[in-house]
Amino acid sequence: MTDHACGPLAPCLVMLTPADGTGSAWTVAEADPRQPQILVTDQGLTRGDGLFETALAVPDDAGHLRVRKLEAHLQRLAGSAAALRLPVPGADDWRAAIETALRGFAAHARAAGSLDARGVVRLTATRGPEPAEERPGGASAWVLVSPAPAPDPELRDRGLDALLLNRGLDSRSAERAPWLLTEAKTLSYAINMAALRHAREQGADDVVFVSADGQLLEGPTSTMLLARRDRQGRRELVTPLRRQGILAGTSQAVVFAGAEAAGWRLGYGPLVPADLLGGQDARVEGVWLVSSVRGLMPVRSLRGEGVDIPQLPVDAELTATLEGYLRQDLPAGPHGSASG
Amino acid sequence: MTDHACGPLAPCLVMLTPADGTGSAWTVAEADPRQPQILVTDQGLTRGDGLFETALAVPDDAGHLRVRKLEAHLQRLAGSAAALRLPVPGADDWRAAIETALRGFAAHARAAGSLDARGVVRLTATRGPEPAEERPGGASAWVLVSPAPAPDPELRDRGLDALLLNRGLDSRSAERAPWLLTEAKTLSYAINMAALRHAREQGADDVVFVSADGQLLEGPTSTMLLARRDRQGRRELVTPLRRQGILAGTSQAVVFAGAEAAGWRLGYGPLVPADLLGGQDARVEGVWLVSSVRGLMPVRSLRGEGVDIPQLPVDAELTATLEGYLRQDLPAGPHGSASG
Repeated sequence: MTDHACGPLAPCLVMLTPADGTGSAWTVAEADPRQPQILVTDQGLTRGDGLFETALAVPDDAGHLRVRKLEAHLQRLAGSAAALRLPVPGADDWRAAIETALRGFAAHARAAGSLDARGVVRLTATRGPEPAEERPGGASAWVLVSPAPAPDPELRDRGLDALLLNRGLDSRSAERAPWLLTEAKTLSYAINMAALRHAREQGADDVVFVSADGQLLEGPTSTMLLARRDRQGRRELVTPLRRQGILAGTSQAVVFAGAEAAGWRLGYGPLVPADLLGGQDARVEGVWLVSSVRGLMPVRSLRGEGVDIPQLPVDAELTATLEGYLRQDLPAGPHGSASG
Repeated sequence: MTDHACGPLAPCLVMLTPADGTGSAWTVAEADPRQPQILVTDQGLTRGDGLFETALAVPDDAGHLRVRKLEAHLQRLAGSAAALRLPVPGADDWRAAIETALRGFAAHARAAGSLDARGVVRLTATRGPEPAEERPGGASAWVLVSPAPAPDPELRDRGLDALLLNRGLDSRSAERAPWLLTEAKTLSYAINMAALRHAREQGADDVVFVSADGQLLEGPTSTMLLARRDRQGRRELVTPLRRQGILAGTSQAVVFAGAEAAGWRLGYGPLVPADLLGGQDARVEGVWLVSSVRGLMPVRSLRGEGVDIPQLPVDAELTATLEGYLRQDLPAGPHGSASG
């Protein structure tokens, strides 16, 4: 435990430092997130050259904080590291750091009488200080556990007004151009943040990106889900095609696993905006943006790029059903980041 | 002057801090770049949400370090800040911080007997620590002056082997989609770094990006220049079209200003790879990648994306002529970042 009061009111920080020059072992130490920890020459800062994962820790039945979808996050992190050629701590090192940070967070939460505190668990690794050395000893890595923001039940009930924005990339870019890093969760999120600012300036709540050739992709910090029911009453859950250059959604994968166990059919796009209107063969029951911290948020309207869908179905019961699949946290299996 | 030995062997750091909540005044203070200065929650780090400029400071005839193209850098920085809706220090605050950092750098250079030391001057501003507050008080800003890397005369004589890589974006994306930030110099440079790593893995020295529709764009950290001579012997200097979503090159603008004064014709693309081969009407005399610190680097070969140009003319005398225009540092005028 650190001497600063990390917990439900302040984040808990654990730094991972290479134990030697080989990058095969990392030491774990608590640090104060209110004090500067990063050099101005760190390439995570100077070049956005690093990766991150954001997970949610919730109390289990025994009251212990447990990270949802931890293995899926660690698996995706390893994929991002490979795409970036970035030496990062191994899964065991991350688990040890997360455990230390959560222990501090939980202890302070208990001391503050907050028994249901939920934590946002952010894993970050950068290429470390310039000059660019590819050796593991140069990397910076840390785990930060912060109090989870309170959910916004009003917005969830109402549904998001989403703005459709062109992501500029052709849907085949990812396969052709791995240097575009479309499937890595890098620190270079300026475009995602600019898109969200642009949407808010236009009076919208969130963004759905569309490819240059008109395929639905993802939100700036979320994955898109579509539920529909065919004429025989069979339910289907659909998400855009991974190969179009979108980030593998850890929440989408877990919701898919739960839905499959419950008898849903599953589909991987491609999806175009017109698919959100449904048709003769299938009725759309809902559209969501899903992410680890915010969970499933229904989309109630979508406009932009020549599309204007003023009213999408918002079904609180269906949202709760899908949220239940997320809470089940089944192993993602074939729906996870290695496939699709 | 700080108590750590900044100068020709170590960088000099000056932090800019909002003097009050209005963002209209910033205080300037030296700091130690070998000590952590940045919080792990800084959005420049967590989201690549910030901007930078990299300039070169060289001794003038009187031996005083002077930043080349300072006004062009400050003008482009203001443009990046506007695109990012980022509150940043004003030009006078930046000038004061630069002056302080250069004074420390020069004093230590003199003490070390290094009279011709050149400095890399990097200006950075981020959105500051989360949570995302748009108030100026939240921003982080600093100036770092580092010893300039020694030039590589061998590589300059030989010329770069460049790899043509698809940037994925359509050349009309910039005009249609300002949220793609193609004309802002943001901290989100992971793709640029990945492209350079990819090129080196392929045995190339550098990268030229091409748009999804086949237009030549720019290098990951440089602007492209093409020199050609028509049948009447008139020389022309050409750079790709700004509207295609490339960063306005401060070096390109100054080279253009010098070339114009010397009687060259000037052209702004569009350029396609076949233009590098020349034709009946004009002979290509050279192709360069130009940036503030490295200056003009000739390109001797270009391959990739179905293009294979094994031998481009590398003319040391012409490179020296264009370098002379860069050193002249004429006001960029209509060739600068506000136009083209």
